[in-house]
Amino acid sequence: MGMIGGGRGAFIGAVHRMAAALDGQIDLVCGAFSSSAEKSKLSGEDLYLDPSRVYGSYKEMIIEEKNLPEDIRMDFVSIVTPNHMHFAPAVMAIENGFHVVADKPLCFNMEEAYALEKVVKDSGLIFALTHNYTGYPMVKQAKAMFRKGDFGKIRKVVVEYPQGWLSTLLEASDQKQAAWRTDPKKSGIAGAMGDIGTHAENLAEYMTGLKISEICADISILVEGRLLDDDGNVLLRFENGAKGILYASQISAGEENNLRIKVYGEKGGVEWAQMHPNSLIVRWNDKSTQILRTGVGDLSPEAQAHTRIPAGHPEGYLEAFGNIYRNVARCIQARIAGTAVDPLYTDFPTVEDGVRGMNFIYKVIESGKSEQKWIKL
Amino acid sequence: MGMIGGGRGAFIGAVHRMAAALDGQIDLVCGAFSSSAEKSKLSGEDLYLDPSRVYGSYKEMIIEEKNLPEDIRMDFVSIVTPNHMHFAPAVMAIENGFHVVADKPLCFNMEEAYALEKVVKDSGLIFALTHNYTGYPMVKQAKAMFRKGDFGKIRKVVVEYPQGWLSTLLEASDQKQAAWRTDPKKSGIAGAMGDIGTHAENLAEYMTGLKISEICADISILVEGRLLDDDGNVLLRFENGAKGILYASQISAGEENNLRIKVYGEKGGVEWAQMHPNSLIVRWNDKSTQILRTGVGDLSPEAQAHTRIPAGHPEGYLEAFGNIYRNVARCIQARIAGTAVDPLYTDFPTVEDGVRGMNFIYKVIESGKSEQKWIKL
Amino acid sequence: MGMIGGGRGAFIGAVHRMAAALDGQIDLVCGAFSSSAEKSKLSGEDLYLDPSRVYGSYKEMIIEEKNLPEDIRMDFVSIVTPNHMHFAPAVMAIENGFHVVADKPLCFNMEEAYALEKVVKDSGLIFALTHNYTGYPMVKQAKAMFRKGDFGKIRKVVVEYPQGWLSTLLEASDQKQAAWRTDPKKSGIAGAMGDIGTHAENLAEYMTGLKISEICADISILVEGRLLDDDGNVLLRFENGAKGILYASQISAGEENNLRIKVYGEKGGVEWAQMHPNSLIVRWNDKSTQILRTGVGDLSPEAQAHTRIPAGHPEGYLEAFGNIYRNVARCIQARIAGTAVDPLYTDFPTVEDGVRGMNFIYKVIESGKSEQKWIKL
Amino acid sequence: MGMIGGGRGAFIGAVHRMAAALDGQIDLVCGAFSSSAEKSKLSGEDLYLDPSRVYGSYKEMIIEEKNLPEDIRMDFVSIVTPNHMHFAPAVMAIENGFHVVADKPLCFNMEEAYALEKVVKDSGLIFALTHNYTGYPMVKQAKAMFRKGDFGKIRKVVVEYPQGWLSTLLEASDQKQAAWRTDPKKSGIAGAMGDIGTHAENLAEYMTGLKISEICADISILVEGRLLDDDGNVLLRFENGAKGILYASQISAGEENNLRIKVYGEKGGVEWAQMHPNSLIVRWNDKSTQILRTGVGDLSPEAQAHTRIPAGHPEGYLEAFGNIYRNVARCIQARIAGTAVDPLYTDFPTVEDGVRGMNFIYKVIESGKSEQKWIKL
Repeated sequence: MGMIGGGRGAFIGAVHRMAAALDGQIDLVCGAFSSSAEKSKLSGEDLYLDPSRVYGSYKEMIIEEKNLPEDIRMDFVSIVTPNHMHFAPAVMAIENGFHVVADKPLCFNMEEAYALEKVVKDSGLIFALTHNYTGYPMVKQAKAMFRKGDFGKIRKVVVEYPQGWLSTLLEASDQKQAAWRTDPKKSGIAGAMGDIGTHAENLAEYMTGLKISEICADISILVEGRLLDDDGNVLLRFENGAKGILYASQISAGEENNLRIKVYGEKGGVEWAQMHPNSLIVRWNDKSTQILRTGVGDLSPEAQAHTRIPAGHPEGYLEAFGNIYRNVARCIQARIAGTAVDPLYTDFPTVEDGVRGMNFIYKVIESGKSEQKWIKL
Repeated sequence: MGMIGGGRGAFIGAVHRMAAALDGQIDLVCGAFSSSAEKSKLSGEDLYLDPSRVYGSYKEMIIEEKNLPEDIRMDFVSIVTPNHMHFAPAVMAIENGFHVVADKPLCFNMEEAYALEKVVKDSGLIFALTHNYTGYPMVKQAKAMFRKGDFGKIRKVVVEYPQGWLSTLLEASDQKQAAWRTDPKKSGIAGAMGDIGTHAENLAEYMTGLKISEICADISILVEGRLLDDDGNVLLRFENGAKGILYASQISAGEENNLRIKVYGEKGGVEWAQMHPNSLIVRWNDKSTQILRTGVGDLSPEAQAHTRIPAGHPEGYLEAFGNIYRNVARCIQARIAGTAVDPLYTDFPTVEDGVRGMNFIYKVIESGKSEQKWIKL
Repeated sequence: MGMIGGGRGAFIGAVHRMAAALDGQIDLVCGAFSSSAEKSKLSGEDLYLDPSRVYGSYKEMIIEEKNLPEDIRMDFVSIVTPNHMHFAPAVMAIENGFHVVADKPLCFNMEEAYALEKVVKDSGLIFALTHNYTGYPMVKQAKAMFRKGDFGKIRKVVVEYPQGWLSTLLEASDQKQAAWRTDPKKSGIAGAMGDIGTHAENLAEYMTGLKISEICADISILVEGRLLDDDGNVLLRFENGAKGILYASQISAGEENNLRIKVYGEKGGVEWAQMHPNSLIVRWNDKSTQILRTGVGDLSPEAQAHTRIPAGHPEGYLEAFGNIYRNVARCIQARIAGTAVDPLYTDFPTVEDGVRGMNFIYKVIESGKSEQKWIKL
Repeated sequence: MGMIGGGRGAFIGAVHRMAAALDGQIDLVCGAFSSSAEKSKLSGEDLYLDPSRVYGSYKEMIIEEKNLPEDIRMDFVSIVTPNHMHFAPAVMAIENGFHVVADKPLCFNMEEAYALEKVVKDSGLIFALTHNYTGYPMVKQAKAMFRKGDFGKIRKVVVEYPQGWLSTLLEASDQKQAAWRTDPKKSGIAGAMGDIGTHAENLAEYMTGLKISEICADISILVEGRLLDDDGNVLLRFENGAKGILYASQISAGEENNLRIKVYGEKGGVEWAQMHPNSLIVRWNDKSTQILRTGVGDLSPEAQAHTRIPAGHPEGYLEAFGNIYRNVARCIQARIAGTAVDPLYTDFPTVEDGVRGMNFIYKVIESGKSEQKWIKL
């Protein structure tokens, strides 16, 4: 694996590295960690990389790596830059034959999204988007139960994503994470809705297997001086007639990273909270509630295939993130070896999920500005 | 106290009786428990009432009681009938000089609501509406903290009220509670929004001290064959600029009575859940979360005045309901004695809250049918 | 009902009154609320009692009430005095034909306990001891499941009762509750073990249906200057071979009233916590955990018979306490009416439970002082 | 790092590998994964190791690696075999100049423990024992608070470690984990007390900074046919006068890995549960409870130094385990570089903790067989 972005001081780059390292399937062999060659070099040293493979730019990295022998050069690129820097490296990597893992949202704008989708599809290469919350075993368990029809037709979906870390005008200080996320030139048209709203949208569609068909949004900037939305409330309608609510907020003071989803079918439903990820609350009409737990009892093959350690040994965010990387690694290994992959291990978000996410971001921002009640997705 | 409605098989009548009895301040002395005189009589026997004061109709009760000596006749009437039977007995009781406690929502329709409001105000008598959830000490604690400004300006309110008991077409069976609640002739224009949505609205306004100014609603009948809404999702805007979400659902399969509210200000916020009512979760920007508990530490006078037993001895639904009755009793006692009441004990929902609730019901149903995005309250 | 003790400033007297009032089956008709006749009179006024039935002493009350016509005089006595004042009024009440409800522990010492047991048994009257925690529906649910053998043979019991309110030398101030509970002349030979340890012992035996056969205790005074134990840790052995732990502590700083029990059988087990009493956690070998909830699904008749309101409407301490009174009331009513009582409603702790509790207290204190490892109960 | 044990089918070997890989500080470069050379080879292939460095025995590995150039050979050995196979490889590794990380308990018996301690101390090399639960940030937070005296003198410690996986005679089937843990020839004199009781003991001493001075134990085999203890209840006395309870059980049916600890001082106390490791419940006399969370607010440097990702992104068992490895790696790196290590990163369990743990195991088993109440540690 070669990494683009994620140098000293970055948050998500380190997450990608730990997630990739966890299962011993992926070695970080090279990187272009910063747009400053000096910074990139220092980051490479921190990571014990061969200095000759620490590059000053992603372009250099892609070109130089391509020139290395096949068994030495990186197998894929991991792109962990801010949103406005996803598209160009992704396209160049693919055009040079490298598979790609990229952080979400897919791109800076819809044009890039559609263009990237075309490039990926034309190439036949693997492209994974790190909607990492789908990597949790109990999310996969819920998905499996809905797919099997355990709960009957889905009627209601409530997905919440409150954070509080932007309750003050943090970007006015030197905080790097806040700065780019609230900057329209780096983040795109959306703030909170792009950063976390799209995770919520992706999770809702992933778990239920349903597509959102219409939305009605109230999008706000609640901290004075901010340039992008920091709070959004959205009514949802799904293609099957189910109704829903989605909200994402970065001004919910005191909240950490409280992504939660509740889905109700005719016979029962589930509740899952990212901060307590090893439990899935399952409720039933007129029966007692069950707490499904990773590693306990007769879970779905999907849940079991994404659990590493026995019941009661909590797995967390990095392990779920690592499941995305692990599955990508298996698929790449199989390509190299010319073998088939167990379908259990082919599950990761794709460029199509990325395009859906970008479309959601655009429509939700449009709805927020509109007096029209419902906007089709 | 005399009771109208609440005979054998009723749910909420028994709740009112237990709530009223709890503090030893109120004696049930008479009742017209059913529109069937025979049923009323049997219910009176169950309750050890003097048979001469078990009446065949509310009209008879009001007339006969008025004829009794002042120190013997009932001091107030408790109305626990279905919605369509609130108005007439309430008006008659007031016109005959009796204070009233009535179950929510206030009336069957807006016309009744406005008319009743006028009657109550003209009379100067006490009228209490049992939005019982405002009786919980930790709701009062949160209200006190917002009023004091502990959290700064309120930015976001999320109030949820999922139940699952109407996930099937229960009214097609003989279930009495389901039957009238889903019958437009008894319940009014709304189902879930009237039965529980109005509790959510009342709680949000009570706790925050803010008024909802605009709404945008998606109101649904999700169980085939039902005549009134069983699910509603609502975007909220508050007069101070805060944004919010309210939903009420009776088809959230497996949910019991899961009223929850989260309110966020600039500096922090609270979360309260009716099913765990003795805790108030208080979150802060960059500080650890606190769990305020009834009976522990330095709570507001309002919270303390509505707690009966020491910390760790859970109080519940009946105790909160009883707080409404206890405060009404204190106010009536003070009227009789010509004394003042400690303002801590004058807190109960009034006819104005009832009119606001009815207006909310009407506007939310209107919004549900409208293509216009925002509707003013 | 007539009450002995429980005047102004008392805690448990008010609890008994609310618990008794809740179901509308019991009227407080008289009382001797204090050893001071003046205080008793004022307490009677607070409670709207007929002044002629507010007595200056329990002796006066029992004699005077006995002289009243049968249909007017109290049906039973409720004794809510400190431990050293249980025996004499209980014996006198019984000898004069009154049923008795008494607070725990049964008496001041073993001699009194055995003597009272004899008096009660000889009389044939009803004697109930308010080990109120057995009144919770989910405790009864667990008991029913163990009795049915749902979990196989019981192997392990862990019962914990930490409180923190005596973490300082509170009795050195004027705190009435602390003062008598830590005074050997009023409380008896034990402090925490008598006040709450005996609740833990009673709960363990009640829920499991097993008897403790041997104990090994470490009993401590951890706050300097205190005269009675404030902390005790006890190893348990049960007659069927099960092993266990019991601890009770009043110096567990910050704990409210955190009585909890876990019982494990061969196939699964339960966990119940008094501070969240409407849930029963049920665990199974290799199956997902269930959360049984009052009012939900197919609970035992015993649980259902002790639940008043629907699922999700929390019941608490007073309701459980009220179940003891309600059952006593039903049994007394049946005696008066000469009818049979549904066995579901005959369940309340008896004088035998009280003697077992006193014996537990004595043996646990003995063990605490002994170098012998195991002491038989 | 070179690994001894942990071949295909092993549980804890994979855990050690993931924990070591997480931070990108440690490469697995060689291994002797099984006593079968063939199995070792296959395991090495799974792990993409250079076949020339996959050895048929630990002896071979230590000798061959020592012959490699310094910058190529492994820096330390990780020993993840069953208990009876800790001592010999550890001694040989140290005698050949390799640092050691070993799984707990330290050895098979006391003689080995004392001998190993001497070897380690004489060598001056690093020896770390994976009492991994001490690696959790909130455990370090609690430790820091007790050390600072935030809670005053410690009075009471309750540490529980229930598991349920040995509720049946699992060792009678082919289950590898159960088989060796219940076999006196591989596990040593203790079953549950060695496997998990020693974790509980270590956690209690680590968090409080106190030493256990006396114990009184009831040790049982509750599943018929088992050869070693599967349940143990222990009264504790600490050197400072604090009292406590420790229990460890593998027959607590339905429990996963429910290690919990509660510690109470004069002013307040903490509760920490391994299955919800990112929270530390902090209780205070007469103040509201706090929930300290990893990444939130003003935590101790020790907690912060052992947290990888922001608040609300759950870290789990592998991350805590990884903290042990990360600190060992830092210390070894510093040795190699001749630099000092920030004391924050020198915290891992040592051979002395291992000896204390072995002594605890021996004394607890002795106490279980003794009629003497207290046994000194």
